Amino acid sequence: MINKHQATLDAAVQALHGRTFYAAFPENPSPEIYGADADAQGREKFAAMRGQHFTELQQGEPQGWAGQEESPYEQKSLDIKYPYFAPDTLVANAQGAFGEWRKLKPALRAALLTEALEGMKNRFFEIAYATMHTTGQAYMMSFQASGPHAADRALEAIAAGYEEQTRFPEETRWEKPMGKYSITLNKTWRAVPKGLALVIGCSTFPTWNTVPGMFASLVTGNPTIIKPHPKAVLPIAIVVAEVQKVLADNGFNPCICQLAVDADDRLITKELAENPAIKLIDYTGGSAFGEYIEGLKGKTVFTEKTGVNSIILDSCEDLDKVAQNLAFSVSLYSGQMCTAPQNFFIPAAGVQVAGALVPYEDVVQKLSAAVTGLATNPKAGPHVFGAIQSEITHDRVKQLAFDGGRSILAHGTVDNPVFQNARTCSPSIHEIGSEKVEQFSQELFGPIMLVIKTKDTQESIHLAAQLAREHGAISCGAYTTDSAIKEQIMDEMSLAGTPVSFNLTGGIYVNQNAGFSDFHVTGGNPAGNASFTNPEFVIKRFTWVGFREPVA
Amino acid sequence: MINKHQATLDAAVQALHGRTFYAAFPENPSPEIYGADADAQGREKFAAMRGQHFTELQQGEPQGWAGQEESPYEQKSLDIKYPYFAPDTLVANAQGAFGEWRKLKPALRAALLTEALEGMKNRFFEIAYATMHTTGQAYMMSFQASGPHAADRALEAIAAGYEEQTRFPEETRWEKPMGKYSITLNKTWRAVPKGLALVIGCSTFPTWNTVPGMFASLVTGNPTIIKPHPKAVLPIAIVVAEVQKVLADNGFNPCICQLAVDADDRLITKELAENPAIKLIDYTGGSAFGEYIEGLKGKTVFTEKTGVNSIILDSCEDLDKVAQNLAFSVSLYSGQMCTAPQNFFIPAAGVQVAGALVPYEDVVQKLSAAVTGLATNPKAGPHVFGAIQSEITHDRVKQLAFDGGRSILAHGTVDNPVFQNARTCSPSIHEIGSEKVEQFSQELFGPIMLVIKTKDTQESIHLAAQLAREHGAISCGAYTTDSAIKEQIMDEMSLAGTPVSFNLTGGIYVNQNAGFSDFHVTGGNPAGNASFTNPEFVIKRFTWVGFREPVA
Repeated sequence: MINKHQATLDAAVQALHGRTFYAAFPENPSPEIYGADADAQGREKFAAMRGQHFTELQQGEPQGWAGQEESPYEQKSLDIKYPYFAPDTLVANAQGAFGEWRKLKPALRAALLTEALEGMKNRFFEIAYATMHTTGQAYMMSFQASGPHAADRALEAIAAGYEEQTRFPEETRWEKPMGKYSITLNKTWRAVPKGLALVIGCSTFPTWNTVPGMFASLVTGNPTIIKPHPKAVLPIAIVVAEVQKVLADNGFNPCICQLAVDADDRLITKELAENPAIKLIDYTGGSAFGEYIEGLKGKTVFTEKTGVNSIILDSCEDLDKVAQNLAFSVSLYSGQMCTAPQNFFIPAAGVQVAGALVPYEDVVQKLSAAVTGLATNPKAGPHVFGAIQSEITHDRVKQLAFDGGRSILAHGTVDNPVFQNARTCSPSIHEIGSEKVEQFSQELFGPIMLVIKTKDTQESIHLAAQLAREHGAISCGAYTTDSAIKEQIMDEMSLAGTPVSFNLTGGIYVNQNAGFSDFHVTGGNPAGNASFTNPEFVIKRFTWVGFREPVA
Repeated sequence: MINKHQATLDAAVQALHGRTFYAAFPENPSPEIYGADADAQGREKFAAMRGQHFTELQQGEPQGWAGQEESPYEQKSLDIKYPYFAPDTLVANAQGAFGEWRKLKPALRAALLTEALEGMKNRFFEIAYATMHTTGQAYMMSFQASGPHAADRALEAIAAGYEEQTRFPEETRWEKPMGKYSITLNKTWRAVPKGLALVIGCSTFPTWNTVPGMFASLVTGNPTIIKPHPKAVLPIAIVVAEVQKVLADNGFNPCICQLAVDADDRLITKELAENPAIKLIDYTGGSAFGEYIEGLKGKTVFTEKTGVNSIILDSCEDLDKVAQNLAFSVSLYSGQMCTAPQNFFIPAAGVQVAGALVPYEDVVQKLSAAVTGLATNPKAGPHVFGAIQSEITHDRVKQLAFDGGRSILAHGTVDNPVFQNARTCSPSIHEIGSEKVEQFSQELFGPIMLVIKTKDTQESIHLAAQLAREHGAISCGAYTTDSAIKEQIMDEMSLAGTPVSFNLTGGIYVNQNAGFSDFHVTGGNPAGNASFTNPEFVIKRFTWVGFREPVA
């Protein structure tokens, strides 16, 4: 088992440190790579699961069945029921599995988990359709984000955990010269897991945001309970089933990794989180619940909460290309990405374009036109925007109200020729004065774009950095042809713990985030501390404990 | 500067991972190593400082002078006055120095700090006498712990910080194949310091417990304010002066590292700790204040608080050697080490010694006799026990009272032929029943030894692990010739995050803790999370932030 996956692990560890392009799982869903029937079979398997009980889990006799998923494309229930287990049962199961899991060598745990990713790979298309019909992501994003990109992030966590646990020797001979004699001790060290782990998923990226914490806790020896959002269970349920299958096939207790679903009449997240046996919690979601999780005593917590992402427009070479790129970033999955830009800071004097000043209003109208063009493009629109995951997000856009400013573009719909009943919404663009900071200092999740007219680029930078420091940010885009401004943005945003993409045009976007290269969430601002995957993300899950004894 | 110290840094990084014996600073204060006059000169320099103002600091015009140190050997004031600066001044000074310090390459910061350790080395003897006459440590411990051992721990922190900040590339070219074309980004990363750092020292190990956090924060680019215990300022003041000297000599702002002393009528620790600009806090001391520090919002905190250290006696080969070893551990610096054992768990049936059962009472009396022998040995006693740092510790021993149990040995004095007025105290030994957990579940700092009569070794292990989990522990000693018992102790104590020394006899003690080999404090129990030096101790002091831009 270890030998089988060692090359994959070694390559992943190397990729983590090289940070050049690397992907263990191809993002292209082409028949040449995944097989001629893979897509059709995945679609059929997903269709066959609807209206059924999900019976793949191996965690004992269910205490009930529950399920609340519905497709944003159909606005109709999936009618899938998952086995329900009470929090105490899940915790007891995990405790029963702790001994065997923690005593395995890290290399064996890493190999078993890598094997599980192979199982996940075989089900990428099922997971894609499950993601599409729970999150509202378009097909391509559903495949890529929930499949290969998630699997790469999982492998990254496995590799980082494996590396950190093998970075110090298991055993050494310590010999201290004392003049005429020496003292010799045999020393050994163990990387001791913290205890039981809980991973709380979100409704928009049910595998991508869940697997890093899940695999990081597992590879470091902590039995892990996966608690998905009740509206997006199936994609990660399939992954948990694949992990359990590998565990059982190799003679281990499948309860090392369990799925925990809410009962239809009982939300169990708080009860799980507050259980004293739960020592590690990974959380993705809103800030209010995230702060509750962070406030629990005696837990090590990793969060990805909300942030306010900024675009700083100073100067560029080709404004049309910039507008196209930014319109795509705002529109991709209807602004429901944690990396989507929200606040666009534009100087009142306008933007320098290839040496000539383009007035502010022209820049704003160009951005608005690019967004409209994308939303009304019958070929591209549906594939970029997807659908709106929840009614709450839809309502937020519809009920948007500001104190002052002006509406630049009213929200509309994005027609979907395949799913007539899809819950869609094209972006709302609103202009707010730079003095009304409180009006643009919170995340407005969904297709909402705010244009902030600033005195100058200095104010743009100042506001973007202030918002990131005080309210969190996960991404930042900046357009400037001035190297001094660029360095200033790097310096100020680095102090605000926010990565910056400069001058993106063409087929690469500020929202995108590459496994093995881009650290996702830095930990340097209130948006969260779960960084995929820096060493801190794995080493806080175990403790180095040493033993020593004189050599006889 | 970088070239000058690169070999030292490389060797230190290698030692961290080899974890075999390594010391960059010799612990032997012999004239052959440190020079024929080094000791005498150090003693004279210390004597000359008494009754004077400490004028070596380069942090601006003092706002007053303050000092409260007194020698535990003389019970008399040192009458040294240190420059006082208000917390706001110190913070403003540090903020003024942040820009230049954070922009240096980690390798240059590491080199400058290593250079400062060379300056510290030249003053090891001064520091030794300063330590002796503030902490009450005996001469040899004062030299070793505050001098070479502290410098090695500082170098360890520098090396670990340097390694972690250079573990990912500064720059790379990321090229993603897209079929017929590729997307190429130039990516860069910066290790961004968290902000200002505060290090709060303790009264018993003023350099050893301060320099790891101090050098860890400095090497990662955070301007650092050192706030010593008001009763033990001089040893670390000398170190701060040496750091400032290197900074100034190389053209940097000395306020990158400042000393903060309490005014005689105003304690400033809380005011400093609560200042929003302070992002990192290292703390050594009691649990109550430590929990206050841990509860501050928006800070990354590293603590070494109190713990309850256990000795588990199951079986051994030579009980006399065991008793000698344990008596020394209890007596060393009069039990004022965080690693000193307190609770001795002994089975009621007695201890197996070389195959024969020695009754419980015989074991207890042998331990007691060994302690008495050491305390009354006129040659060894003073050099082992030193003096009691504070009146509070002395009072604790004198006023010790238990509900039940019995006194095995009453405390006394340890005569010191050189210092007639030394504040000394020989150990008090008390027996407590194993059912009275609350009576032995808190740290009784000082020369206090509790004997706990257990049902059997299983109860001993269970209680030692429970105390460590619930109340913290920094060390554990165990004596067993049974390999199954040994493995059980390793397993249970590892889950309690407590390192274990097995079967120590001769010249190595459970209290001792070797730089570059033993992780000091694991972070796995309530005794604290400041582990000298694991990767977590340094990586939480900075944030990885990435930048990317298409290649033109």
